[in-house]
Amino acid sequence: MAYRYRKTKPDPPVSVERLARGIASGDRAALARAITLAESDRPDHFRLAQELLQRVGDRTGNTLRIGITGVPGAGKSTFIETFGMKLCALGKKVAVLAVDPSSALSKGSIMGDKTRMANLAKHPNAFIRPSATGGHLGGVHRKTRESILLCEAAGYDVILVETVGVGQNETAVRTMVDCFLLLAITGAGDELQGMKKGLMELVDIVLVHKADGDNKEKALETKKELDRIFRFLKPATEGWQVRVLPCSSLTGEGIGDVIDLVFRFERETKKSGIFAERRRKQTKDWLYSAIADQLQNAFFRDGRIREVLPETERDVMSGKLPVSAAAEKLLAIFLESRL
Amino acid sequence: MAYRYRKTKPDPPVSVERLARGIASGDRAALARAITLAESDRPDHFRLAQELLQRVGDRTGNTLRIGITGVPGAGKSTFIETFGMKLCALGKKVAVLAVDPSSALSKGSIMGDKTRMANLAKHPNAFIRPSATGGHLGGVHRKTRESILLCEAAGYDVILVETVGVGQNETAVRTMVDCFLLLAITGAGDELQGMKKGLMELVDIVLVHKADGDNKEKALETKKELDRIFRFLKPATEGWQVRVLPCSSLTGEGIGDVIDLVFRFERETKKSGIFAERRRKQTKDWLYSAIADQLQNAFFRDGRIREVLPETERDVMSGKLPVSAAAEKLLAIFLESRL
Repeated sequence: MAYRYRKTKPDPPVSVERLARGIASGDRAALARAITLAESDRPDHFRLAQELLQRVGDRTGNTLRIGITGVPGAGKSTFIETFGMKLCALGKKVAVLAVDPSSALSKGSIMGDKTRMANLAKHPNAFIRPSATGGHLGGVHRKTRESILLCEAAGYDVILVETVGVGQNETAVRTMVDCFLLLAITGAGDELQGMKKGLMELVDIVLVHKADGDNKEKALETKKELDRIFRFLKPATEGWQVRVLPCSSLTGEGIGDVIDLVFRFERETKKSGIFAERRRKQTKDWLYSAIADQLQNAFFRDGRIREVLPETERDVMSGKLPVSAAAEKLLAIFLESRL
Repeated sequence: MAYRYRKTKPDPPVSVERLARGIASGDRAALARAITLAESDRPDHFRLAQELLQRVGDRTGNTLRIGITGVPGAGKSTFIETFGMKLCALGKKVAVLAVDPSSALSKGSIMGDKTRMANLAKHPNAFIRPSATGGHLGGVHRKTRESILLCEAAGYDVILVETVGVGQNETAVRTMVDCFLLLAITGAGDELQGMKKGLMELVDIVLVHKADGDNKEKALETKKELDRIFRFLKPATEGWQVRVLPCSSLTGEGIGDVIDLVFRFERETKKSGIFAERRRKQTKDWLYSAIADQLQNAFFRDGRIREVLPETERDVMSGKLPVSAAAEKLLAIFLESRL
């Protein structure tokens, strides 16, 4: 039957069975295809992806999920390459996922994610998923959660979720990861102004990156400045005081410390129960927001609602109909119109 | 029939007709009773309040809605008293509403809102609604919108919505008002740390309050400091540069300027169309969030959902059931279970 895949048919039938087996055996091509399936907006793909997730669900979860953010220019790609290579050398299997659809427009991604992390891309213990080029934001988030699970099912035990530190994505990434790293660079004062407000409250570890050569001294100053700021902030993870570490992906200096710190974070939060509790809460919140999304989708796609909504909106705008009464009227129509 | 209200019967029948007439004639007791009705969680009260809002809807809207926030100790009560008295002297009819249920616990409200604004409470042009002592946050917000409309229907043309500048309420208040005032005090550096992050991005006018006596000099310095900060922030209202004004409710100095500035804000935003556009957007957002709330209420109250939800949650938590599949399954049950 292999010849069928050579034909120009646009949609070869997807075998969930075969994908599940491929993923279980650590086949990267199968994993890549599974993620593409999960990212698809087609209803049939949605169903197949859910079936697949159900089959491989028991292979997920026993991993460390790390978010990595930083302003453009902080050197995220080089850091992930160096950090990932060290993890691989320790026998870890590392998967890299990018959240921002916008990052596909950045220089890094035009070069291709695999080019910007050339060594890591070739490492047998690593899997790099090129940035999603399509899809709206909310969708990408949901898909990222599912991609994490698929990577875990394929045997990857450290999942790096990369995002650009300027948008709304960091809050979403915080809800998917165990540990959140911020890549800062020297001259924190200026840099902080470019950062999304509130970002500092989301992170567990801050790295002052590019701490090499002439920059080393400045990096230490920036570390002190950041330490001072964090004293005023509520930590993102209960019982964990945010640590600021200078490091360099160029010289490799400090990267070992970052690895130690990340695993120390894992150990301490596992011991205190925060790790497991956060995972539970993340899953529950995910379920509740999926319910809310699907409810609203069903509502606004409903034929009767689409018919009466414009007029109802007009009546509300003109003050003829109170808002709560309008919502109640629409709801009654929605709940009646189905069988 | 008046005797019926004297009996110990807990629930005298509410006449929407009579309340509507009372409100239209500017009867404060009727307005107070209408707000209580709107604040109630009882379904029959909800229906009566909506009926009432529908009847008086055409008398609402042609007003100025002003949000007032500030950390505890900034002197909000004294400011509202002084500011409100000046507005009344200009022939305006002023209504004061408080958003925070928590404020009922603060010293100010233990003393009673009418005590803390003794002169304003007695003024024939003013109406003060004591802080709600019950109700959860979300509810209070929704009720505040309806209270605003009821005050407007009763002829009040400046509505002051008071909130404490430390919680999540400011974002909600921003969605209900035309103009948002922040009461700051001197020593902005320290004070800003106590303020909710992001608050500065919500406001249109900042007052450096208690600018009197020895404090006057410091207030001017704080003004300069705040001016500098606002240069870096995106204004909350398109086309309006945030203004910082020192003033004192004790001496009355600067209060006239505040009044001028508020009406200048109204004139300019009405001219540019921002005023009307914001009102439209606020009403539309309110409708959409009311729909989302009612949808979720209907869902989680559904008998079949309550039956299957715990098991579904367990399956999701244990990884047996993917999140999106679980949400879809629940939705199918919800949409089927009604007739």
